[in-house]
Amino acid sequence: MPFVANEKITSLQNPRLKQLVRLRDRRPRDEAGVFLIEGYRELRRALDKGLRPTELYFAPEWFLGENEPALIAQAEAAGAQVFELTKDAFAKVAYRERPDGLLAVAPQWHRTLGDLDQLGAGPVTPFLLVVEAIEKPGNLGTLLRGADAAGVQAVIVCDPVTDLFNPNVVRASTGVLFSVPVVVAESAAVRAWLRAKKIRAVATTPAAAGLHTDADLRGPLALVMGSEQYGLSQFWLKESDAQVRIPMAGQADSLNVAMAAIITLFEAVRQRGLK
Amino acid sequence: MPFVANEKITSLQNPRLKQLVRLRDRRPRDEAGVFLIEGYRELRRALDKGLRPTELYFAPEWFLGENEPALIAQAEAAGAQVFELTKDAFAKVAYRERPDGLLAVAPQWHRTLGDLDQLGAGPVTPFLLVVEAIEKPGNLGTLLRGADAAGVQAVIVCDPVTDLFNPNVVRASTGVLFSVPVVVAESAAVRAWLRAKKIRAVATTPAAAGLHTDADLRGPLALVMGSEQYGLSQFWLKESDAQVRIPMAGQADSLNVAMAAIITLFEAVRQRGLK
Repeated sequence: MPFVANEKITSLQNPRLKQLVRLRDRRPRDEAGVFLIEGYRELRRALDKGLRPTELYFAPEWFLGENEPALIAQAEAAGAQVFELTKDAFAKVAYRERPDGLLAVAPQWHRTLGDLDQLGAGPVTPFLLVVEAIEKPGNLGTLLRGADAAGVQAVIVCDPVTDLFNPNVVRASTGVLFSVPVVVAESAAVRAWLRAKKIRAVATTPAAAGLHTDADLRGPLALVMGSEQYGLSQFWLKESDAQVRIPMAGQADSLNVAMAAIITLFEAVRQRGLK
Repeated sequence: MPFVANEKITSLQNPRLKQLVRLRDRRPRDEAGVFLIEGYRELRRALDKGLRPTELYFAPEWFLGENEPALIAQAEAAGAQVFELTKDAFAKVAYRERPDGLLAVAPQWHRTLGDLDQLGAGPVTPFLLVVEAIEKPGNLGTLLRGADAAGVQAVIVCDPVTDLFNPNVVRASTGVLFSVPVVVAESAAVRAWLRAKKIRAVATTPAAAGLHTDADLRGPLALVMGSEQYGLSQFWLKESDAQVRIPMAGQADSLNVAMAAIITLFEAVRQRGLK
């Protein structure tokens, strides 16, 4: 194999393994400033996007393919310490039910509205997704996927309940977390920033009078989506420049927040003539 | 309480409980011709749609609200035998990680293309979703939700890998399984039936030349979606009347089959002027 494992970990009591299990929880993650990347596909994408894991744990007995050694070598070349684990030890640290023998630790990053300051300065018309107080990591990951497919320049997460580095966000985003710029900020700051940038905030809410397909979704645009349980806050209902609703033929909650976002995002794609 | 429990089950060895656990698997489900409905919301919707559970198991210690006794009484009035379980016993039979103390057994049903024969005879223009060889129950459930929201008259499931009565389909569909007519049939039979009914089959595939927004999605329409892993089969690629693709700005698999279906369904809703 073209990489050198630092050591082989066989004891389930190894302190590194205990720390990996702790990193499933937010507080230890934030305290250490790191997060977990599990799985070949996710790690592949992280490395391809220039992410530099600090540690990589692998267990050949769980490998599903033949390309794992090359990926491990790539992680090591990017600066990761590499550790081999026994099958049992890996099962203990794996977050997934069916692990594939690869788990990395990588540094968190944090983007602010300031990182988006170039937006609107060039020839590209701003197109953003703003999501408020999302609770479920799976929904946040799916929202990131939809935003990536639609070609937004960034996703702004207001007052999140779940954190961006939850293992289920990483997983549900299928690696989009590593490519789409995601900014976390307070709603009031986001509103002021959008106004300063002359970006229209268009909120999707079942209470709106007009359909999303009747609204003008061209020009500098931020689509705003509320939380799963409570929908949009009074703040955004009051502060949005326009409100739209999606026509609903079926039962009240047939669409969840991620589905509603995808429908509105792709109506904007249509109107903007994006290919 | 306005209902009468047949008996209180305390033993984890009770044969009824063992059968409930077995019903998580397809073969015992199909042999018994029944399936599981777990959770207040799902059971509420099943009863509201006229489904008649044969058995209802409940454990008050898991209840989350105050309306459970009324729901149990409704199930009993609909013909269900009612059994109270201890907290531990319920935890054993519950499929969910966080159960809410309600689990019912109900008879399966099976719709065929013949059940859709009235389609197109009245003033309503046929609007259908056809999905092929879907593997993941969660995706099938989400597809049903999207189809319900878009107002299709039926979903046709061709050559399914997962079965309609998998607990994760019931769950992910949030009860839509009980309201949207779902037909299971072979692809060739579906193709012939669509042709006889003069319903256009429009397939979504990344290989298509034209965008979904440039195609005419009015008139009698069946949107056809492929499987998660393999996309559309050669059969449907060859046999569809038109093919469309969704513009993709991001990484190749940003959209899964359910997201792609929702985008195409709601473009059809827009073109058809459905409110």
